[in-house]
Amino acid sequence: MAEPLIISIDVMGGDFGPSVTLAGADLELTRRPDLRYELFGDEAVVLPMLEQYPRVKAASRFHHCEVTVAMDEKPSSALRHGRWKSSMWRAIEAVKKGEAHFAVSAGNTGALMAMSKFCLRTMANIERPALAALWPNLKSESIVLDVGASIGADAQQLIGFAVMGAAMARALFHTDVASVGLLNVGVEDVKGNEEVRAAGQILKETALANLQYEGFVEGDDIGRGRVDVIVTEGFAGNIALKTAEGTAKQLTSYLRTALGRTWLTRIGYFLARGAFQGLREKMDPRKYNGGVFLGLNGIVIKSHGGTDAFGFAAALDLGYDMARNGLMSKIETDLAHYYREQAAISLAAGEKGS
Amino acid sequence: MAEPLIISIDVMGGDFGPSVTLAGADLELTRRPDLRYELFGDEAVVLPMLEQYPRVKAASRFHHCEVTVAMDEKPSSALRHGRWKSSMWRAIEAVKKGEAHFAVSAGNTGALMAMSKFCLRTMANIERPALAALWPNLKSESIVLDVGASIGADAQQLIGFAVMGAAMARALFHTDVASVGLLNVGVEDVKGNEEVRAAGQILKETALANLQYEGFVEGDDIGRGRVDVIVTEGFAGNIALKTAEGTAKQLTSYLRTALGRTWLTRIGYFLARGAFQGLREKMDPRKYNGGVFLGLNGIVIKSHGGTDAFGFAAALDLGYDMARNGLMSKIETDLAHYYREQAAISLAAGEKGS
Repeated sequence: MAEPLIISIDVMGGDFGPSVTLAGADLELTRRPDLRYELFGDEAVVLPMLEQYPRVKAASRFHHCEVTVAMDEKPSSALRHGRWKSSMWRAIEAVKKGEAHFAVSAGNTGALMAMSKFCLRTMANIERPALAALWPNLKSESIVLDVGASIGADAQQLIGFAVMGAAMARALFHTDVASVGLLNVGVEDVKGNEEVRAAGQILKETALANLQYEGFVEGDDIGRGRVDVIVTEGFAGNIALKTAEGTAKQLTSYLRTALGRTWLTRIGYFLARGAFQGLREKMDPRKYNGGVFLGLNGIVIKSHGGTDAFGFAAALDLGYDMARNGLMSKIETDLAHYYREQAAISLAAGEKGS
Repeated sequence: MAEPLIISIDVMGGDFGPSVTLAGADLELTRRPDLRYELFGDEAVVLPMLEQYPRVKAASRFHHCEVTVAMDEKPSSALRHGRWKSSMWRAIEAVKKGEAHFAVSAGNTGALMAMSKFCLRTMANIERPALAALWPNLKSESIVLDVGASIGADAQQLIGFAVMGAAMARALFHTDVASVGLLNVGVEDVKGNEEVRAAGQILKETALANLQYEGFVEGDDIGRGRVDVIVTEGFAGNIALKTAEGTAKQLTSYLRTALGRTWLTRIGYFLARGAFQGLREKMDPRKYNGGVFLGLNGIVIKSHGGTDAFGFAAALDLGYDMARNGLMSKIETDLAHYYREQAAISLAAGEKGS
């Protein structure tokens, strides 16, 4: 049997704390019996609850932490009070120490981002991490990044996102080559801002073994599933993600109202309820729970704060899949390959110039 | 009876030209018998077709134009070949000459934008026009701008969009005060980029009679209908709009598949078909056809190139409503009011400083 895969969990994170994180960890163990957990939290709260989950207890080591980062705490304050000793920090630190393959927290996003950067540091040549989200599309799923880890990105940062996103797609979608598009306001070369155009130009000119650059994509190409990876800076990415969520809610609400309107539509709904159930499952945001910070020396997954055990288990499973498929080494290899290609191009240009 | 309202139409614009634009003009006359048209196009094509629409013919003056701007023509080429003489140019020019209340074209967006700017010029203090779109929400409708007329916007440009969008909302939604939000990645003051934060600060500090500033809004607030007007620069706005369109298509496709799966779901669909029909109508993109260029000395409406007569009529109707409610004078008054307030604030700051 394979070596166990170890996840460090900030048990206290999220709107519901251990009642969700422990229940999620329990659920995930039924799918992945080879999991082990490093649990970080307040013993007074966690230990009694852990008794309800003997399977989790048996698969875990528990570490008491005095400090819990509040959901509304500012990142600076969280860093000041929670560094070294909060459950969030220590879950991240377990990755740094090699005691866990990745960390998961449903806590405060800003604090998680700040602590992850501070503790794990960014990879060589990566200035800022990106937050990558899974996005369901008509064919299967794609990865969109950055969905809000930072605002704005220059061409080199966008390319970093592209390479890391492609590595994530390879780890997750079990493919050797991931297709990548740059999100833009049109598909022609002249469209968009300078950063996007420059990134597109470089990606077009650089031969990368594991990344198939497909050019610019537009907002409606995301749902269509035109590419595996959609790359954008965090402002536009966050707005795209939330706009899609809002539109999905809006249509669901219209549909519910329309179906409840007459006795005929209600009977129709009753008969077709299997279809609606299927649709609900397909669109279930809990299935896509889990944003991945990419570009750090270790993997940290952010779960939605308001999710339930099912959603938290999905965030754990997302990391499981990626870690089992060697996400970190894929990112390292692919980034190194890209920077080597870039250096070769610069060198050739220099020789031509001299 | 009120004075007739006059629309200048680029009859040749769009994927289908006169077969859609004339049919749309005819449809719109059934709703608004007080309309008159100034029609611009190639007489060899348009005049025979006009015979099929005697009502349109009776309500119109036709003007022959030798040149038609191609749907895929670059704006620079369209300006070079089509200025002064194309159907697109002359429809816009009719607004400038005061011969029409507004112009509508389903032609090439870039060319329409370039010609509109060149012919009508931007209003005082407005550097670049914005493209405003109607967006259905759970309560009713809102206006989102800029959805792609230009890329990037500084604080003063964003505020210009806010004031013009609010004037459009007042003309369209029959309200004295329009609520406005700035699209951002979070609602806290520290979120977003410098331009958005600066615009928010100024809007907060400036008392405007007709504009109620509601702070930052996120992507999912658009569909929720939190505010009448959502302001953003054209890159994020375009991506939000197309992402929403893509998500709507995606869910519709899921639903269709799910409902066709078993005989039970198909019977259910049959019984509830009234609800689906209602939903289809509610979501019909043709109803929301028509982007409005704001910030020019005259109103130009861009219809989707691929729409049909129903959609083209909706674009005509959008302009009708706004023109009847004095959109241009509302924009002028509100902008003047804003710049007066800003000047007063600068003056007060200067006096305090001296």
